[in-house]
Amino acid sequence: MKIRYSMIGGGPGSFIGAVHRRAAWLDGGFELVGGAFSSNSSQSKSTGEELGLSAERVHGSFEAMLEAEVRLSGEERIQAVSIVTPNHVHAAPAIRALEMGFHVIIDKPLALSLDEAREIEKLVKKTGRVLALTHTYAGYPMVKEARHLVKSGKLGKIRKIFVEYPQGWLSTFLESEGNRQAGWRTDPARSGAGGSVGDIGTHAAHLAEYVSGLRITEICAELNTVVNGRQLDDDAAALLHFEEGASGVLIATQVAAGEENAVKIRVYGELGGLEWIHSNPNSLLFKPLDGPAQIYRAGTGYLHESTSANTRLPAGHPEGYIEAFANIYTGFSRAIQDYEKGNYQGPESYDFPSLEEGIRGMAFIETMIASSKSDKKWTKFSI
Amino acid sequence: MKIRYSMIGGGPGSFIGAVHRRAAWLDGGFELVGGAFSSNSSQSKSTGEELGLSAERVHGSFEAMLEAEVRLSGEERIQAVSIVTPNHVHAAPAIRALEMGFHVIIDKPLALSLDEAREIEKLVKKTGRVLALTHTYAGYPMVKEARHLVKSGKLGKIRKIFVEYPQGWLSTFLESEGNRQAGWRTDPARSGAGGSVGDIGTHAAHLAEYVSGLRITEICAELNTVVNGRQLDDDAAALLHFEEGASGVLIATQVAAGEENAVKIRVYGELGGLEWIHSNPNSLLFKPLDGPAQIYRAGTGYLHESTSANTRLPAGHPEGYIEAFANIYTGFSRAIQDYEKGNYQGPESYDFPSLEEGIRGMAFIETMIASSKSDKKWTKFSI
Amino acid sequence: MKIRYSMIGGGPGSFIGAVHRRAAWLDGGFELVGGAFSSNSSQSKSTGEELGLSAERVHGSFEAMLEAEVRLSGEERIQAVSIVTPNHVHAAPAIRALEMGFHVIIDKPLALSLDEAREIEKLVKKTGRVLALTHTYAGYPMVKEARHLVKSGKLGKIRKIFVEYPQGWLSTFLESEGNRQAGWRTDPARSGAGGSVGDIGTHAAHLAEYVSGLRITEICAELNTVVNGRQLDDDAAALLHFEEGASGVLIATQVAAGEENAVKIRVYGELGGLEWIHSNPNSLLFKPLDGPAQIYRAGTGYLHESTSANTRLPAGHPEGYIEAFANIYTGFSRAIQDYEKGNYQGPESYDFPSLEEGIRGMAFIETMIASSKSDKKWTKFSI
Amino acid sequence: MKIRYSMIGGGPGSFIGAVHRRAAWLDGGFELVGGAFSSNSSQSKSTGEELGLSAERVHGSFEAMLEAEVRLSGEERIQAVSIVTPNHVHAAPAIRALEMGFHVIIDKPLALSLDEAREIEKLVKKTGRVLALTHTYAGYPMVKEARHLVKSGKLGKIRKIFVEYPQGWLSTFLESEGNRQAGWRTDPARSGAGGSVGDIGTHAAHLAEYVSGLRITEICAELNTVVNGRQLDDDAAALLHFEEGASGVLIATQVAAGEENAVKIRVYGELGGLEWIHSNPNSLLFKPLDGPAQIYRAGTGYLHESTSANTRLPAGHPEGYIEAFANIYTGFSRAIQDYEKGNYQGPESYDFPSLEEGIRGMAFIETMIASSKSDKKWTKFSI
Repeated sequence: MKIRYSMIGGGPGSFIGAVHRRAAWLDGGFELVGGAFSSNSSQSKSTGEELGLSAERVHGSFEAMLEAEVRLSGEERIQAVSIVTPNHVHAAPAIRALEMGFHVIIDKPLALSLDEAREIEKLVKKTGRVLALTHTYAGYPMVKEARHLVKSGKLGKIRKIFVEYPQGWLSTFLESEGNRQAGWRTDPARSGAGGSVGDIGTHAAHLAEYVSGLRITEICAELNTVVNGRQLDDDAAALLHFEEGASGVLIATQVAAGEENAVKIRVYGELGGLEWIHSNPNSLLFKPLDGPAQIYRAGTGYLHESTSANTRLPAGHPEGYIEAFANIYTGFSRAIQDYEKGNYQGPESYDFPSLEEGIRGMAFIETMIASSKSDKKWTKFSI
Repeated sequence: MKIRYSMIGGGPGSFIGAVHRRAAWLDGGFELVGGAFSSNSSQSKSTGEELGLSAERVHGSFEAMLEAEVRLSGEERIQAVSIVTPNHVHAAPAIRALEMGFHVIIDKPLALSLDEAREIEKLVKKTGRVLALTHTYAGYPMVKEARHLVKSGKLGKIRKIFVEYPQGWLSTFLESEGNRQAGWRTDPARSGAGGSVGDIGTHAAHLAEYVSGLRITEICAELNTVVNGRQLDDDAAALLHFEEGASGVLIATQVAAGEENAVKIRVYGELGGLEWIHSNPNSLLFKPLDGPAQIYRAGTGYLHESTSANTRLPAGHPEGYIEAFANIYTGFSRAIQDYEKGNYQGPESYDFPSLEEGIRGMAFIETMIASSKSDKKWTKFSI
Repeated sequence: MKIRYSMIGGGPGSFIGAVHRRAAWLDGGFELVGGAFSSNSSQSKSTGEELGLSAERVHGSFEAMLEAEVRLSGEERIQAVSIVTPNHVHAAPAIRALEMGFHVIIDKPLALSLDEAREIEKLVKKTGRVLALTHTYAGYPMVKEARHLVKSGKLGKIRKIFVEYPQGWLSTFLESEGNRQAGWRTDPARSGAGGSVGDIGTHAAHLAEYVSGLRITEICAELNTVVNGRQLDDDAAALLHFEEGASGVLIATQVAAGEENAVKIRVYGELGGLEWIHSNPNSLLFKPLDGPAQIYRAGTGYLHESTSANTRLPAGHPEGYIEAFANIYTGFSRAIQDYEKGNYQGPESYDFPSLEEGIRGMAFIETMIASSKSDKKWTKFSI
Repeated sequence: MKIRYSMIGGGPGSFIGAVHRRAAWLDGGFELVGGAFSSNSSQSKSTGEELGLSAERVHGSFEAMLEAEVRLSGEERIQAVSIVTPNHVHAAPAIRALEMGFHVIIDKPLALSLDEAREIEKLVKKTGRVLALTHTYAGYPMVKEARHLVKSGKLGKIRKIFVEYPQGWLSTFLESEGNRQAGWRTDPARSGAGGSVGDIGTHAAHLAEYVSGLRITEICAELNTVVNGRQLDDDAAALLHFEEGASGVLIATQVAAGEENAVKIRVYGELGGLEWIHSNPNSLLFKPLDGPAQIYRAGTGYLHESTSANTRLPAGHPEGYIEAFANIYTGFSRAIQDYEKGNYQGPESYDFPSLEEGIRGMAFIETMIASSKSDKKWTKFSI
């Protein structure tokens, strides 16, 4: 049966709301039944109407929505909420939903601050409900294959990890021109203490740890606010130390004029390297120490089963961003189904980012900022 | 409101059925309410169950399904059917559904033969219902931009059109090993008189005509059956004449070992050329006569509005095959909505392939076969 | 010791003359000592001066130059001539030079016509001197690796060969604007009966035969003169039959606006395919039937020795067109050295195109033209 | 007239010696007349013989060679020396040659240490002779176009500079296996205090400054010795500050298993970005803030004349590493010719790296090492 869920955020002008909805629909595992799409009640209603929802399940606040849902019968009531609001409205609805017994899927970063993230952590531990965090890039099949190749020892001991996330869309003072996305993402009150480092740096850091299986231990960072008048960093770079002696470099910038969203990761070990880039997401380059580089392709028969489980189409039929997102939703739905059967033991046995990744993301932001302010070269990344 | 539809075909082992379902779900415009997923009644039922459908709307034959639907109230009854069966089961359900007043979306090629296609044509003309044909590649935004650039005169008068569709999956005698897809696609009784020429050649021909806006007028073709024991052609190539003096080359082969699905089109005019390849679907290369080649990218602000209307995400967030398919479904849904308001005047005002393209596709298959058998260089492509 | 040679052609306005000179210099195996760079005596002299040659060895006609050289002592006298004139001045100097006992390296196509080529053939057979033909693309190391992979059976029995040579530089009526290169290449008196088919089609045909090891047996061609006023074809395409049941497609066009010189070859066999493109000359893609595609790279340790012998630099240090040319010159110099030691048995034991390839090239041009004029689909390619 | 020169280094087992020779020959501007190819006299002689040199001009020490040359008549005597030895034999022959009045072209880095570089500087200033330094990547035409685009304001004020030089060839302890190149490059006595930072880091730093026109002002670096037993760093990364508020990242590693020589530079300004990568050297990507990215190509008509002056072939005919090297040699020859006419005013009016770049390179190595040892984040890059 489809999982009934409600959305918090995702009203007019939202980018990520529609992505979440499509991701949930794509594999047919979810049914959107209600929402608090906007704190503007009429905007919320109109989004609900567009989506063909019953008016009585659409509200102008997440509190009202959750209150109404909890009063419904178990067969009608939502099982989960999807939180797609700006960062400052992550923790409150997540906490409230968990308290009421709902599962939560939430856009990254987990919260406005590490402290808020800790509050969510308490509730997850207390309620035992499922929490998923949409670090999209971890949803791509060839990123999963990359992780598998590292884990299987194909690269040998890991030495170097280079991750980058160059964007150009904030090259101008867009937030002064009424651009809604730029507005909240560059506003500390809504985005948190990190600008680029929170918005895209957390993706890069997560990707590096996800693929390499190694945690960042120390950071030497510089954050810049390149565009005059901007309140938050729009450019970040860092040298990184990882567990087991690996080291690397992270770049996350929103002022690389002309760049779109070309997230890229390269990992090198004793025996070979690998490379994945978001602009060509269905390929993964494996470069052995000796011998020709190999182009692993999504949908082929030679991939690991955990990769194949995250594709829908035979090789040569491109899947993209929504599909990657849907892979996270599908993992979330499996965990909920197991939960309902009493079999949910925590996110470790699934392949979607969850609480731990969310906590690390918030700590990453704070460590990057602390390092950037410090004259010392290295700042410990501790949680 | 979502359009209620039922699927014919798409049971266990189907590739394209799930693609159609996801494409219909993706933008939230369709609700799958029933099906005749297989002529094996229990297989049909079990697919229906997996999809969470009411058992009473799932049947073992399209006839039974259509009979049952037509008896339902207007508010419950399906509005459309999606036909995703092998080619020999295209015409009968399409004709029956049209007769009963349902709109039809159908996988390509339109029918088993041109004669069958003519029968469908009669019903469409008689009933005035909407018919859409899923020539997927025409659903890609950058293919639409290519068509727009040609139409806008950016390339000047068109001179050359090169289109190719190389696949490698039929390099071995797969149909002898129980491969279901290979089974029907190489069987004249289920696939029709064309093998590669029908399965992928029709895509290539449609793409060439769609992008260039020019019709093929003469064909000089060779069809080969490369793999021993195979009943149909698995390899085709042709020199082409187009309207207005343009000429070109078409390649459609299923024995290009190692190739996936790398459909590619290049069009050259007096002022420049353009190139699109399916393995990098969100880019379109425009090559002016003088000056640097330009990489047009999906999701950017400089594209034509008809292109932008077929993307969901900002530049740099890859969309793929399902999204291209969904663009056809979305066009189909708009036409149905207009139909229900009494505003449907025919497919010309929408951007999805329909009857004419289907008829041309069947004629293309027959002309390719006739040319291949002929000692004469050129065979007229007439309908 | 360096081989002393003289150049015929290659004066002011020549493109290929300087390429030949650099190719000869690159590996240090040749010393240019004289020339008949132009039939305009003062232009020939001034080119000689620029090149630092003794005035007495520079002449206004190849006859005068050859006469003068033959009178010099064996230690001073040239050993070879390099003929880089337009096609109509290929046969006469080649024949005269061979008669006088000089070795000959000559730009393709071998002559103005097959008949002329036959005359050269007679002299080569009579004199036993070395003749090399600069089909450049056969000089690229990764083309040699491609040939090796086919020969070694890595692709299994060959089924399909697609070769293309798209250029855009003749998209306009350039020969009317005083462009020297366009001038002679579109003039039947200087270029011969073939335009695009001779200028670039012969390269494509040679490449197809060189890599596949299979000869073209039948041709179904269309030649077009796309640009108004042009005297020769500027666009050609053909379906091809090869020995051993292989088939393919050849494209050679000079009106593909925006294209540079993107020669490309793809060969598919029972076990895999390979792909090489001139715009990325140091890579060769090998695509096994199953398993990831592999990127073979020039300069690596895993290539065949006959490939490695044609590179100068370690992997990752790009070599290009002049280097490919130089590989032919180096083969030519080895043959001459062997000749002088009495060990030259014919071109078969070297890796450079020679008489046979030249004869086939001329026959290819004539067969393409004959096929293009014929209503019959297939024209035999016989010599 | 050709410039007569002699080579120091470049005997058996040398990689770069043959590159220098080919680069000098390629455009016909130099004549190699002698050498001290090895300190092993017989090895030097045998290299001389292979190169067809007179035995009396080939020596077992650079001192003997220079002494002998200086005694020859002005018309016979060399005009320049090319120094291609390991770093510890750069300064002594350079100083001696300058003292004797010869011009010097020298492989990078300029010397074993900044102090040695300062000694060379004194002699250059004292003698006024021409000194060229072969920072190859600055010799590529599309790198020159990149520099031109920045200088012309096409990118606006520069904000970010990312440069990287990933290699994999030192992933294993190659110097323990008798590999000659690895031997000296990882030996502090022959390579200097920097390993990867000197061997390839200097190339990256030079490229960044050359393209951007901005100097590095502060460095935050980490150098690693990844392979056990190695005596020098084989991996380096740094955050960079440039003049005028730009910042960036530099990566230079020799343990990126599977990488060849993929030097890459990206520069972003207020109005756009550009990207060049060594594996595709004849293309330069220009990415405007809005509008499609453009692929600038070597050999086209729309490039700046200073770019075109550094290409030999029309667009689509690849040039490579030797050609880039030759561009430096050709600049060097022009300066020498001007010198001989009394017109040489210093390297500023030519386009080849010289003393200043060499001094900065040595200071870069020392600053990288100092920063790597420091706990402070930033170390000033001062000279």
